[in-house]
Amino acid sequence: MDAIPARPARIQDVAAAAGVSVSTVSNVLNRPERVNARTAARVRDAVAALDYVPHPGAAGLRTGHSSSIGLVLPDVANSFYSRIARGAAEAAYDHGYSLVLCHSGDAPEREQGYFTMLVQQRAVGVVVVPLGADPGRLTRLRERGIPLVLADREMPDRDGCSVSVDDVAGGRIAVQHLLDRGALDVLVVNGERGIRQCADRYQGARQAVRSRRGARLDQVVAEEMTVAYGAKIADQLDDLPGGVFCTNDFLAAGLCRGLTERGVRIPEDVQVVGYGDLDIASFGATTLTTVRQPVEELGRAAVEMLLDEIEARAEHTHETRVFAPALVVRDSTRPPADA
Amino acid sequence: MDAIPARPARIQDVAAAAGVSVSTVSNVLNRPERVNARTAARVRDAVAALDYVPHPGAAGLRTGHSSSIGLVLPDVANSFYSRIARGAAEAAYDHGYSLVLCHSGDAPEREQGYFTMLVQQRAVGVVVVPLGADPGRLTRLRERGIPLVLADREMPDRDGCSVSVDDVAGGRIAVQHLLDRGALDVLVVNGERGIRQCADRYQGARQAVRSRRGARLDQVVAEEMTVAYGAKIADQLDDLPGGVFCTNDFLAAGLCRGLTERGVRIPEDVQVVGYGDLDIASFGATTLTTVRQPVEELGRAAVEMLLDEIEARAEHTHETRVFAPALVVRDSTRPPADA
Repeated sequence: MDAIPARPARIQDVAAAAGVSVSTVSNVLNRPERVNARTAARVRDAVAALDYVPHPGAAGLRTGHSSSIGLVLPDVANSFYSRIARGAAEAAYDHGYSLVLCHSGDAPEREQGYFTMLVQQRAVGVVVVPLGADPGRLTRLRERGIPLVLADREMPDRDGCSVSVDDVAGGRIAVQHLLDRGALDVLVVNGERGIRQCADRYQGARQAVRSRRGARLDQVVAEEMTVAYGAKIADQLDDLPGGVFCTNDFLAAGLCRGLTERGVRIPEDVQVVGYGDLDIASFGATTLTTVRQPVEELGRAAVEMLLDEIEARAEHTHETRVFAPALVVRDSTRPPADA
Repeated sequence: MDAIPARPARIQDVAAAAGVSVSTVSNVLNRPERVNARTAARVRDAVAALDYVPHPGAAGLRTGHSSSIGLVLPDVANSFYSRIARGAAEAAYDHGYSLVLCHSGDAPEREQGYFTMLVQQRAVGVVVVPLGADPGRLTRLRERGIPLVLADREMPDRDGCSVSVDDVAGGRIAVQHLLDRGALDVLVVNGERGIRQCADRYQGARQAVRSRRGARLDQVVAEEMTVAYGAKIADQLDDLPGGVFCTNDFLAAGLCRGLTERGVRIPEDVQVVGYGDLDIASFGATTLTTVRQPVEELGRAAVEMLLDEIEARAEHTHETRVFAPALVVRDSTRPPADA
């Protein structure tokens, strides 16, 4: 055992030695297909030189404190949150921490119950997609000295780190795409105004239209963001717009189905863009052009920012990281004019 | 911060609020196995309401054991597994245990890494949906003295508890329904023979047909269990059967779409039953009659059987619990003849 350094190498040491990010080291170890061969070789050299072993859990036992991170979600069976959980679980594993799954089930008292449990178990930190509007629960958790990263919500930098996806940018690229493909009159099929994501996506749609001469925007609000409701709206449209932006894929899939049943051709007569790149976007008779959110990356980043706060301590500075969504082009919008 | 009471809650306050003794509160926090679930829930509600936090150094640290359960899944972002996770998380919370989420990502070495971590962290037990065919990993875990419940796999009673869904029964009720609704010639669109669930569902289909005079069964094997492949099979069918049983909902949705595009009417010309009651079963132009699996219940039962093994010790006997699936009737099969 004499050759082993006083402190076992951590993933950060490997990253520094190889001159790459921690995520790249993690990718080499877990998803080598994502990394080019030369970079991967450099990382593997560093792993070998430092005798780095991903060593889950050992740290906590050795130092006498827990190495658990809490992940508090409204509903782990919702695909958006389960993808956050996947990214968070992978990052926790890569860094040797265990992840305690806390499924608040949309119940504030259960969310509070989990916070209490995490304090009792001396979790080293918590990633939380918070429920509702009581910041008091989060404040009390922070006052216990437990570092906290908000996911899918923004937080003022002074209070802690947060990760979210830029919904304004998502709405903007969706509508810019419709405008680029020749649909200058755009209808937004939106959710209720009180839903923050819907308001942001609509704001992005307005930005896109304002910056394009001759473009105009209408909005219809769906009471429920479901396939059935999308189909209902398709039945009720009198004047067909050139393009429709639905603020989720369920609405878009229902709208496409309803329009097709009326004999409207997609994308020839009406072009449609959805949001979320849910499974349903690839399933329908017309596959959906949609906006993809980097949800796994969001979960992964939340854990890595939390660990930076835990491990770097005084050197850590809070950060508000906002991920950019990306457009995925499928059959529901026209090919570019020059194709 | 005015809303926070001047004095932090003490254990006596919790006991008074819950209407129990101080030692019962202490048991709920430290030895939850000694308290019945209803009392424990009342105490935890009071703990949450009063924001009570015991002195550090309590619980696991004092007694030298943790109250963590591991949940090892191939992919937490797969909806079948995320529903297991929801049921498991709810049961763990109800009984005062924390649930460590282990996402093996279909990688055997990562599954083993998690097992090692759970041993190091002295998890009190593990629920696992195991990967692949190496029972050695499970045996080694059991040899460490860690109780183990298998989910979505059966296990001989002598080795431990397991929970699964009866796929033979699922195939049987699917095809019985087609026969009952007048389709006596049934085609099974199945996955590869090597997939255990597919083989079981086909066996159930055969049982249903064998017990019905005049009924006959054919089978076609889909290389991929996808919507696209279901549509492809619809294109290739020469003689239309009266009924089609697809062993998952993706195949069934694609088949319905493909048949409809050929002008075949569902359910008038061909009746279709899927499997799984995935979201897609409710999304298509034709909603799917399908087989629903009680997945949350399976996750919940796995945790409760594990806790029985942990808490009852000598009185515990291993059990193989097999859940019955249920038929959900929608538009893709005909109404009963007498309707």
